[in-house]
This record gives sequence, structure tokens and C-alpha cells, in this order.
Amino acid sequence: MMKTLWQHCHVATMAQGKYSIIEDAAMVTVGSLIEWIGPRSQVPTLDYAQVHDLQGAWVTPGLIDCHTHTVFGGNRSGEFEQRLEGVSYAEIAAQGGGIASTVRATRAASEDELFESSRKRLCSLLRDGVTTVEIKSGYGLDLASERKLLRVIRRLGDALPVSVRATCLAAHALPPEYKDRADDYIDHICTEMLPALAAEGLVDAVDAFCEYLAFSPEQVERVFKVARQLGLPVKLHAEQLSSLHGSSLAARYQALSADHLEFMTEDDAIAMAASDTVAVLLPGAFYFLRETQLPPMDALRRHGVKIAIASDLNPGTSPALSVRLMLNMACTLFRMTPEEALAGATQHAATALGMGDTHGSLEVGKVADFVAWQIDRPADLAYWLGGELDKRVVRHGVDINV
Amino acid sequence: MMKTLWQHCHVATMAQGKYSIIEDAAMVTVGSLIEWIGPRSQVPTLDYAQVHDLQGAWVTPGLIDCHTHTVFGGNRSGEFEQRLEGVSYAEIAAQGGGIASTVRATRAASEDELFESSRKRLCSLLRDGVTTVEIKSGYGLDLASERKLLRVIRRLGDALPVSVRATCLAAHALPPEYKDRADDYIDHICTEMLPALAAEGLVDAVDAFCEYLAFSPEQVERVFKVARQLGLPVKLHAEQLSSLHGSSLAARYQALSADHLEFMTEDDAIAMAASDTVAVLLPGAFYFLRETQLPPMDALRRHGVKIAIASDLNPGTSPALSVRLMLNMACTLFRMTPEEALAGATQHAATALGMGDTHGSLEVGKVADFVAWQIDRPADLAYWLGGELDKRVVRHGVDINV
Ligand SMILES: [Zn+2]
Ligand SMILES: [Zn+2]
Repeated sequence: MMKTLWQHCHVATMAQGKYSIIEDAAMVTVGSLIEWIGPRSQVPTLDYAQVHDLQGAWVTPGLIDCHTHTVFGGNRSGEFEQRLEGVSYAEIAAQGGGIASTVRATRAASEDELFESSRKRLCSLLRDGVTTVEIKSGYGLDLASERKLLRVIRRLGDALPVSVRATCLAAHALPPEYKDRADDYIDHICTEMLPALAAEGLVDAVDAFCEYLAFSPEQVERVFKVARQLGLPVKLHAEQLSSLHGSSLAARYQALSADHLEFMTEDDAIAMAASDTVAVLLPGAFYFLRETQLPPMDALRRHGVKIAIASDLNPGTSPALSVRLMLNMACTLFRMTPEEALAGATQHAATALGMGDTHGSLEVGKVADFVAWQIDRPADLAYWLGGELDKRVVRHGVDINV
Repeated sequence: MMKTLWQHCHVATMAQGKYSIIEDAAMVTVGSLIEWIGPRSQVPTLDYAQVHDLQGAWVTPGLIDCHTHTVFGGNRSGEFEQRLEGVSYAEIAAQGGGIASTVRATRAASEDELFESSRKRLCSLLRDGVTTVEIKSGYGLDLASERKLLRVIRRLGDALPVSVRATCLAAHALPPEYKDRADDYIDHICTEMLPALAAEGLVDAVDAFCEYLAFSPEQVERVFKVARQLGLPVKLHAEQLSSLHGSSLAARYQALSADHLEFMTEDDAIAMAASDTVAVLLPGAFYFLRETQLPPMDALRRHGVKIAIASDLNPGTSPALSVRLMLNMACTLFRMTPEEALAGATQHAATALGMGDTHGSLEVGKVADFVAWQIDRPADLAYWLGGELDKRVVRHGVDINV
């Protein structure tokens, strides 16, 4: 196989979730994999097929956005504006607003329309350094519509230079046709939707929304049991607005992650640490909703829970098109360090997707997904607010351009 | 002169600081000016030299960033990281950190180095739709270094497709060689620096930092008097951390703007309204510093003070590379409406630069600086968080590409 040499750079490898810096580094890739990485002075002397000069860049793993709802119809900027003009939530709900409006728009949109609108949003994430993304369904809420969303998610992965993981979030909200019949909807998910969608190869993981205004822990557990029978890993939206101990439930099912977590307890953290369930924090939603309850950073750190950061890209509570902005918000709002934040969008985000062995850090044998940033130091990634940084994005050992 | 037709778009003209929407609009430009704008059905039938199809875009005036410190040496991401790792402000100050470190790095940098680093930052603003920007000096703090900064600012305006206004902010902080001699430094500014820099044609306006940790209202007034003698308009950093009534002082000198303003009083607002001094709010600094004292939005609205929004791009308190992100922060944090926020980065920002008659709205006779955004409605500009929106940027009637 042809070998490619990348040099004249510093690398924050993010091995073990630390910067793990190699100054004046070099990296050798073969195909899509890293074959060698280390100080440039020790690079094997070989006849390389290609040699790339990275011009003093700081190289990090490609960013991983491990929690997004990228595919949806319409957007909710109109409601955003109404709220700021003084219209109450009750009035907006009476107009059919909120998540119900996104479900209507999503059901009404064709697969091609959804593909095109979400392609643009995904390109925005990619232009800011993302090479792996998780995308959830959950605005269809019936079999045909959830299938449509999951197909779009698969198509996005085929069409764009990004690794996509598809998560079925049929248990996101109660569809209007099941009003006051949440248990019946959970039945439908468990007996019809999940088995069918999994059989079609459209599902990499199963997620649910555990909250007093969505589904109870008991209902979530029924979904988790079916996921386990289908051999699919689970994730959970938990403790965003109240403490139902969904994160402990997720831990009992060896969930890849529990996400949001502002209201989790120390016991939840202990359970998550024991099951190696990643805590995915979503500072964009915290910011956009002007929340005040911070996730329990000290408890998470004390018990060694891995912490990831994601955009939560969605039309209602986090219309975020940049993971780098989320790094800043994780630092500014949650007081994470830039190193913790970067680990949260690389190594720990990979673990939250079950990809920790192949992605998320720059080590021998892992996939050669990386970004060469023209910055002064890794902390720059969390420091600059918005905009665009000069960079070169490489995925599977090849430059990408979006 | 050749006439150019732009059509198949909706326009938020931002005339009088309102959306002032024209649906299914057309615009005729001649050279760099708007000759006609209105409903497409009424566009004059002529033999146009060029016809551009804007494909259903929403057209707004080019964004105007009316308060930036774009030109500086180094950056402060290292301090940002230290703070988050638990190092105290006192320790960082003892290391020579804070603004002193930026002054050292700026003085040490060559004009070409400063040009190159600030060119990249300015390009980031431009890529997000900015067509006019104000840039302040203020990290030189001696005649030669302030001259160097102002020259870089002029060069940026020559090199990039953006209209640049240069503001002399020599009264930004006390340079180390004047320790405990603030009045002597103000003397130096008034008798040496300002007259020399103005004579060299490097200054469009004069600014100062009125705060207990910078300069007193009396010291600021001495600077304002010299500016008036030199025929230069003034601006002021005021009431960011305490209430010294700098904004009322600014109003007495018919300042173009008073900026920050979190601690201003209702009397200050009345004075600003009377002198048509624009209130420039800087939500990026409010966010980055985790401030809690909001600017008095109700008083500003009640007294009809024009409100602008800007990035405050600077290394210490707002490393913001996007005006669109500032629109979101103005809405999310200050509860401005998307319409107020957009007016704040167009018409009112133009007024804050003394350019309100020629820039900031799309009206006959004004400069043809506009952005055609592929969005669903104008509120989208304040709604999406970070990333990049599909758009076409036109300045002086010509497409620009940065
Ligand atoms: Zn979510
Ligand atoms: Zn400033």
C-alpha cells in the first residue's frame, strides 16, 4: 500500500482524552488508517508516495458531533421571533407551534426535500471540522415518517465525506394521533417500528426522551428491552428539566450515553461511571433556553464519568451549526477546560457512539480523520467565538472539501 | 452608465431601522449605487446590462460591524485556558497577562505581521456577511505603535472588499511607561498623538475607555475637546462595569455612539436620545465575561435611543468572529427582537459610524452593499447559532468573494 507522510505540525492526539501533545510531529497514513505517529525526528525513512507539509498547523482528531437532530422539516425561527416579540408559549402552542409544528413540517416534506435541507446544515458542521456525526430521527413519529428520516440519514452518509451514525428516536414525543395514549405509542414503537426499521438496516442505536413532558422511565425501559433484543445499543435524553434518574436507568442498560443531565444526581454519576456510559452535555440548548441549572461537573469529574459535548442541532432548542462554538459554550457556561471540551468532541464523543476504538484520537491503527488548524495553540479551538478558522480537513487519509 | 437588475428575491430594506419588507422585489443598481428598488411588478422595463436571478433569497443590507478591535498581536487563548484551569486573575496579572500582554505583543509585531493576522480575522467577519467595519487602535499606546495600528487599518480597507472606518483609541489603557501618571498620558495623547495621527489622515473618529480602571470622565473630556478642535467625531466605551455617566458626557459632545452601557441610567438614555448618540451594545463581551447586569433595554426603547449591535472583536473579552452570532446573543441574552438586532447591525450601526445617510439600508441613492441569504425569513439571521449560511455578498454593486 502507498504510504503518505504528513509533517511540519504539532499534534494534540487526544489519546486517553488528554491533549497528549507531540510537538514538531509527523504522521504516516496508509489508506484510511494511521500507521505511524510521533516526533518528526523519528519518522521512518521511506520512499513516501505523498508528502504533505502542514505548515506549522496544530493537528487534532476530526471533530465528532455525537448528538444531533439534523434532519427536520421547516425551522422554528418564526416562533423564536414571536417569543421575543412577547407572544406567550401558550399562544404559540395554541397555534400548533413547538415540536408539533416540526413534526407536521417533517411529515409533509418529501425525502428529497429533507435530504436537501439537512445536507446544507450538515455541510455547515463539516466546514467547521466535523468528520463524524450522529443524527437522530424523531420528528416523524410514525413508521413511514421515521423510515423516511432514517433513509435521509443514510443518504447523507453516502453523499457527504462524513461518517454518520443513525439513531432511532421514535420515542421523542407523543404523536398527535396517540394523544393521551402514551403506552399505546410505546407498544407501537416496540412491536412495529423498531423491529421493522432495524430489519431494514436503518438503525445503529436507539434513543428516547425521558422527561415528565415526554416518556416515563418505565416506558423508556420497555423501549430499551426491545433494543437489547434487537442487538442495538441505547442512549437516552435524561434529566434535562427534572430528575427522573433516567441516567441511572441508561447505565443499567449499558447505554452508550446519557445526554443533557443538568438535573442528574451524584448517584446517577456513580452508576454511569460503573457502566462507562458517557455524559453528553449540550451547552447550545442550555444557552438557547437560558437555563440556569448547570450539569454537576464536579460529580462527573470526581467519579470519572467521560464527558462529551455536542451541538444538539435541532430547530426548537439548539439551532447550532458549529461544534467549535459548543466548545466555547462548554468552557464559558459549564466551566470546562478547553482540553476537556476538545476531548468531549473527539475521544469521548467517539465513545458515546461506540466508536472509541477506531475514532476520536490520533493513534496507530485508528482512522486517519484529522484537522490541521492554523492556530497558535489547541485552546484556540474553544476560545474564538464563531466565524471560521483556516484549516485543512482530512478524512480517511484524504483531503475533503465541502 | 450600465444598469444592473437584481430580482427574484424578497428584501428587508431596513429603512428607518425596521424590516420594511418588499416581497417579490427587484433592485436596479448603477455602479455602486441603488437607483431603483421596489416590487418586481413595477420594475422599469429597460435594456439592462446585467440581470441577476437571486433565486428566492432574502436580501438585507450588508452587515455593519461598528465596534471592533480587530488589529492586535498574539491572542489570549492561553489566559482563557489558565482561568478555566483555576489560575486566578491576580496570578495572571502577576505574569504580565491581561491587556498588558496584548500591548507587548502588538508593540513587538511588525506592521506586516499585524496586517496578516488581522486580515484573517477580518475575512472571517466578511464571510459572514459584513461589508462595513469599524476598527479601533488602542493596543499600541505610544505614538509609533498607534500609528502602526492605524496604518494596518487603512491597509485592510485597501486590500479587502470592505469599507473600513479607523478609530483612534489611544485612551484605551494606561501604558506601562506612564504608570500612576494617567494625566500625563492624556496630555501626551492630546498634544502629540492625536494631532499627529489626524494630520496623517489616519483617523476617522476618536474613542476612549471611561471606567474606574481606565480613564475618568474628566480625562475623557480633555480628549474629546482635542477631537473637536481637530474636527473629528467621538465615541466612548462607557458604563461597562460601573456608572460614571460617560454616556451622558458622550452625548454632550454629540458622540456618534456610546458603547457597552450595561450600567447606564435612564438620565443617560435621555441625554443620548437628545443628541442622537447611538447605543452600541456588545453581547459577545457580556457573554464571554459572564456578566449579569443587562443594559437597560426598556429605557433605551422608551426614549427612542437607536440601538446598534457589534462584535467588539478583541482578544481579551470578546474573541468574536461573526456578527450573525452577535445577533443571536442580542436576542437570547438581551431579549432584543430579531428585527431590532438586524437594525442594530445595519441602519443603526451605519449611524454609529456617521454613515447613516449612505449605508445601512437599501434605498434609492444609497450604496449597493447587500447580502442575498438563502433563508426562510429574516429572523433566521438571528436564529441559527454559528456555522455558515448560503449567501451571496454584493458590495458597491459587485459580487465579492473572500
Ligand atoms: Zn436531543
Ligand atoms: Zn471595545
